Amino acid sequence: MAPITDHDVDHLDAHQDGVAYRAAIVGTGFMGRVHARAVHVAGGRVAGVVGSNVERAKDSLADMYADQVFGSLEEALDSRDVDVVHVCTPNHLHEPVALAAVAAGKHVVCEKPLSTSAASAAAMTTAAEEAGSLGVVPFVYRFHPMVREARAKVRGGEIGRVFLAHGSYLQDWMLRPDDDNWRVDPDLGGPTRAFGDIGSHWCDLMEFVTGERIASLSAQSSRVNERRGAQAPREVTTEDMVIVQFATESGSVGTVVISQVSAGRKNRLLLEVSGSQGSFCFDQENPEVLWWGGRDRSSMLVRDGETLSPDAARYVRVPAGHPQGYQDCFDALVADTRAAIGGQMPDGLPTFADGLRSAQVADAVVTSARERTWVEVGP
Amino acid sequence: MAPITDHDVDHLDAHQDGVAYRAAIVGTGFMGRVHARAVHVAGGRVAGVVGSNVERAKDSLADMYADQVFGSLEEALDSRDVDVVHVCTPNHLHEPVALAAVAAGKHVVCEKPLSTSAASAAAMTTAAEEAGSLGVVPFVYRFHPMVREARAKVRGGEIGRVFLAHGSYLQDWMLRPDDDNWRVDPDLGGPTRAFGDIGSHWCDLMEFVTGERIASLSAQSSRVNERRGAQAPREVTTEDMVIVQFATESGSVGTVVISQVSAGRKNRLLLEVSGSQGSFCFDQENPEVLWWGGRDRSSMLVRDGETLSPDAARYVRVPAGHPQGYQDCFDALVADTRAAIGGQMPDGLPTFADGLRSAQVADAVVTSARERTWVEVGP
Amino acid sequence: MAPITDHDVDHLDAHQDGVAYRAAIVGTGFMGRVHARAVHVAGGRVAGVVGSNVERAKDSLADMYADQVFGSLEEALDSRDVDVVHVCTPNHLHEPVALAAVAAGKHVVCEKPLSTSAASAAAMTTAAEEAGSLGVVPFVYRFHPMVREARAKVRGGEIGRVFLAHGSYLQDWMLRPDDDNWRVDPDLGGPTRAFGDIGSHWCDLMEFVTGERIASLSAQSSRVNERRGAQAPREVTTEDMVIVQFATESGSVGTVVISQVSAGRKNRLLLEVSGSQGSFCFDQENPEVLWWGGRDRSSMLVRDGETLSPDAARYVRVPAGHPQGYQDCFDALVADTRAAIGGQMPDGLPTFADGLRSAQVADAVVTSARERTWVEVGP
Amino acid sequence: MAPITDHDVDHLDAHQDGVAYRAAIVGTGFMGRVHARAVHVAGGRVAGVVGSNVERAKDSLADMYADQVFGSLEEALDSRDVDVVHVCTPNHLHEPVALAAVAAGKHVVCEKPLSTSAASAAAMTTAAEEAGSLGVVPFVYRFHPMVREARAKVRGGEIGRVFLAHGSYLQDWMLRPDDDNWRVDPDLGGPTRAFGDIGSHWCDLMEFVTGERIASLSAQSSRVNERRGAQAPREVTTEDMVIVQFATESGSVGTVVISQVSAGRKNRLLLEVSGSQGSFCFDQENPEVLWWGGRDRSSMLVRDGETLSPDAARYVRVPAGHPQGYQDCFDALVADTRAAIGGQMPDGLPTFADGLRSAQVADAVVTSARERTWVEVGP
Repeated sequence: MAPITDHDVDHLDAHQDGVAYRAAIVGTGFMGRVHARAVHVAGGRVAGVVGSNVERAKDSLADMYADQVFGSLEEALDSRDVDVVHVCTPNHLHEPVALAAVAAGKHVVCEKPLSTSAASAAAMTTAAEEAGSLGVVPFVYRFHPMVREARAKVRGGEIGRVFLAHGSYLQDWMLRPDDDNWRVDPDLGGPTRAFGDIGSHWCDLMEFVTGERIASLSAQSSRVNERRGAQAPREVTTEDMVIVQFATESGSVGTVVISQVSAGRKNRLLLEVSGSQGSFCFDQENPEVLWWGGRDRSSMLVRDGETLSPDAARYVRVPAGHPQGYQDCFDALVADTRAAIGGQMPDGLPTFADGLRSAQVADAVVTSARERTWVEVGP
Repeated sequence: MAPITDHDVDHLDAHQDGVAYRAAIVGTGFMGRVHARAVHVAGGRVAGVVGSNVERAKDSLADMYADQVFGSLEEALDSRDVDVVHVCTPNHLHEPVALAAVAAGKHVVCEKPLSTSAASAAAMTTAAEEAGSLGVVPFVYRFHPMVREARAKVRGGEIGRVFLAHGSYLQDWMLRPDDDNWRVDPDLGGPTRAFGDIGSHWCDLMEFVTGERIASLSAQSSRVNERRGAQAPREVTTEDMVIVQFATESGSVGTVVISQVSAGRKNRLLLEVSGSQGSFCFDQENPEVLWWGGRDRSSMLVRDGETLSPDAARYVRVPAGHPQGYQDCFDALVADTRAAIGGQMPDGLPTFADGLRSAQVADAVVTSARERTWVEVGP
Repeated sequence: MAPITDHDVDHLDAHQDGVAYRAAIVGTGFMGRVHARAVHVAGGRVAGVVGSNVERAKDSLADMYADQVFGSLEEALDSRDVDVVHVCTPNHLHEPVALAAVAAGKHVVCEKPLSTSAASAAAMTTAAEEAGSLGVVPFVYRFHPMVREARAKVRGGEIGRVFLAHGSYLQDWMLRPDDDNWRVDPDLGGPTRAFGDIGSHWCDLMEFVTGERIASLSAQSSRVNERRGAQAPREVTTEDMVIVQFATESGSVGTVVISQVSAGRKNRLLLEVSGSQGSFCFDQENPEVLWWGGRDRSSMLVRDGETLSPDAARYVRVPAGHPQGYQDCFDALVADTRAAIGGQMPDGLPTFADGLRSAQVADAVVTSARERTWVEVGP
Repeated sequence: MAPITDHDVDHLDAHQDGVAYRAAIVGTGFMGRVHARAVHVAGGRVAGVVGSNVERAKDSLADMYADQVFGSLEEALDSRDVDVVHVCTPNHLHEPVALAAVAAGKHVVCEKPLSTSAASAAAMTTAAEEAGSLGVVPFVYRFHPMVREARAKVRGGEIGRVFLAHGSYLQDWMLRPDDDNWRVDPDLGGPTRAFGDIGSHWCDLMEFVTGERIASLSAQSSRVNERRGAQAPREVTTEDMVIVQFATESGSVGTVVISQVSAGRKNRLLLEVSGSQGSFCFDQENPEVLWWGGRDRSSMLVRDGETLSPDAARYVRVPAGHPQGYQDCFDALVADTRAAIGGQMPDGLPTFADGLRSAQVADAVVTSARERTWVEVGP
């Protein structure tokens, strides 16, 4: 691995001396484990975990780098050894857990969607603000270096006036009638499934990168499987696919296709943006490069610490050609969260305000799809 | 080129014995030359050309494999040596030239869009039908073998129930304010520029491949350059971009982005379709492969005469790995047109009825974009 | 197809007024048909064909755009209506047919490998030279515009000092023991099969593009199937794979892998070249782009008549994004051959001298593989 | 990130209860930091670091998750709190550090190349064996799930008889005359630079995946920059490029191109293997997919825990479509090392025996390049 020893790669500090980051992680499923590893890599400590089932939670201790299992959420919130609460539960519990954590004076990292309605997300945002707690929502795709490079290009004027943004977020894990999940149930997952779960990521990423804000939209949603479940299939009310077209406050236009039923697409988040001076395309499944187009060029910008803008180079951990991945994004998000707790405010850290914004867009999507009209995205 | 001699590649007959194909080509620009070459390769004869300027037309004789320049359209139509008229003029002349040709008893191949309104396209379609003339519209992307393979898969049930179709058609040749063209002028090009010119291709291809028919749509159009022209820029009323989302008669949903101002995209027609058993994606700029996805697979189907369905293999001219291209599609279109004149009706030959269908979709797009509502696509 | 009518694409003249190009095509297999179409497209005439079987040859008349079947080679050579003889026979007949054609005062286009030994190829080259006949060998990959672009970059110094060239030419049509062909028989195909048939293409292309000349080489060949044939398999003596590493006269180094038995590779000719200022990579199966690398860049150069060098733009027939293919190369080769007969000498037309060079490299490969030593490539 | 919570992804145990893994890391450069993070993620502890400069080492403590800086190697080796020594120094120190660690009863993870000669590597291997110490060499590319999938396919017979292996390992960080590094100096890096540093990776990977062993080889090496250094350039004796062709014990053939001067190639390790039933191609820069070719197929196998073989699925940490990267490989290597210390022997853990094998191949490459002959690879 020749070049590694010798290049001066700008990298994130593995820890922030003097900034305590003792986390309680609520939820021991896969997302919980991803959060735990990120806390551990960021130099924090997983003070304990909270699970719906104490015995099962104990089995996860090793995977979660955790010191203990808390007997209850209250026990975790009462603990003086907890600085931050990571909420990795089903969606309907985001609000009560986060509000309780904020009330207990903890910082909160809450999985997306922040909540199942814009009203609820607004309440959470206000509560955190008033309590002086940091509230973070893991829109982790913001932490791909090439996403930051695209953003830097927009900000630096290299793309000119942005007038078009489009793309997709396609998965296939809900293709079949017997594919099932708590998200299918609106009482647990909220009224929008596909958009809430992954459409929210795309819209956040688009607005984050381009600086454009969706002002109005026209959506339609669709369901492939009217009943789901291996045994005793039950009726489904949440959508499998959503199509949204939109106009932004500045007059740009765009569209995105969201699907959890597109066979062969695993996690295909594509974002393509066109402006008066250039275009780019980012593919989350191939995040080491950014297509960068112009009238006379078709380039692949490479995640190379030696050529990127400082904003992007900050998230480069290994030299070009040594792929970074999904967990690296999460690690960087927690490192930035820790820095924010320490008083810095790293550019681009997704907060509850971003989660609220996302909930407002989701509300507009649901309304538009129901009424088949253009809808303003409201505060 | 080892394998070529030895494989039995099904190929199109270079000519149809006994089927006269003597063409008059109206318009000597680039499209005229593409038509001329296709006539020549298909074993037809370019009996003569008609140009707006007789002297300039004479200069094109060699490029157009033409025997002569006709002094006027009338002269061409009067000629007993002309069986087919190829209309390669600006859009506003399609109707009068085609109607005159039909009235003279000729067959017609008329560039797309067939006409600048659905009403006019309907009149042309009826006239051809009543005269017993064959009317063909060169939706040439239908002639890529991998497009036929996708169609065969849909028809054969391999993709299951189709529920999603999306994609784009992106170009950049109109990006800059000084990029200009007769299409910009609605009197010559019609009321819709980007959609009429390239959006029509995408919609035809989608409907052709999937068998789905767009029932209703919601569109928005946008203009990047309000004025165009190198000297004395003039105001522009036609659109640079269109976004269309739609629902089909069977309940499938979809969206497409059309743009002539996306820097770095030259002719990027992408069509992705998802169904209950599989998905495919076709990229016109890379037409030798078809992505073929399933829950457990991500395959690149190769244009290989030995593995394709008969409907696709019919358009294979050279062995796998020896790229076919744009002109090969045009050559195949004219070969099939000749066969149709000879009394066969090759599957998939795009006729005036398809051009009319396309004009109806275009009308709905214009209406929807103007009124910001969902619009039914009407006959 | 909006942009086509409006761009001024430099294109090859479809014909050369006053330059007669009446061809006799010897061999009516697939290569014969590819030659015939190219003659037709180039504005020449297929005066007649010669086949091993007169009846079968008659069936090919339509496909070959041919006026007649000659009763024999002699009849074709005696004809005053034949200017050029295209030799599309098995390899062992290249020499006698070409020598007879030259003796009859005809120009010759002879399929590669020019002959089955360097001595024989030298004799053919001398004969054509002394007779004043043009001798052309269809190393057609030279006619991809992006190959010309790579060559222009080398010549213009954009790549700096060339020091490395490597790649492959992989096919799979001879993978199985029952895959058979006249090329397997050394009496018909010559002593080297894989290298003679496709390795020769790669070496020609590398030398053509880089200007480097292979000075010495070390090769090994290998056979996967010791016996071939569906019925009564017989012993095989020709190779299925060859690996060649080499040094050039200027001190560059390189290697190439040649295989006719690599499952899933259809016609994968890859050429990658590195120099002190940049690198490029060309993939024959994806010929519309050229990868162009530098310390700070990874670009895809697009076949766009508006941005290419004049040497490359000369072979652009259609605008960027409308794929050109294999047949377009052949059409251009014949057009350039016609121009050469007319007294021009288009840069890059592959002649008998290039075929001889190729035979010399092939001889060195055979010797090196047999003796397992480095061998000088000799004249 | 919908699917994550719900899929049962087989993942590596984050730690092995009861298996102590307290590491001393010798060398605080970038590789040292990569090792440290992997120890931390694997649930081990970085008991301390040893640096050539104690002050600078102190600055790295946070990045290295380390408890302390040892004042010297001896101090680290004397410590009862150290179970494993990670050797991340320049090459010439590998042998003395590793031998001292083994003598002190420690396990050793030693960066590649294991040593600068086969004799020295043999001594280290013997010493570790006799001491009962585990010796590991981080050929980390073995830990990409798709590499394991390829290996499983070979072992399962899906590829049939392997007869061809080829590829490249290309970088550009040494392209310019002022690019410099301790590896350039043979006293520090050893007699072979490009091959020792990255060629060793390719050969290990090829042998690991295919089970083939290189029996004999013919190599040439080349130098682009005869002098290096920004100030006071000095003469260089180590190579910038190596080309190796080889035959294996079973009769397969192959070739590989190694270069540190190929502009635009950052870490391009490609391995393509062909057999009688199929082919695959792995690209380290795009490690989430494996090309899988057959006469009738061209598939991209996706790193999807639900479809991979158990041997590959073992290294899946996140669902398909969420990229894994370079650090994930290193984390898995240390996790497997810890398991091996605990008495398991995970398949595919690269040991000193593999490092020795690699040194033997390197010796043969140096000899062959010097003598321009085929050389047997010896023990």
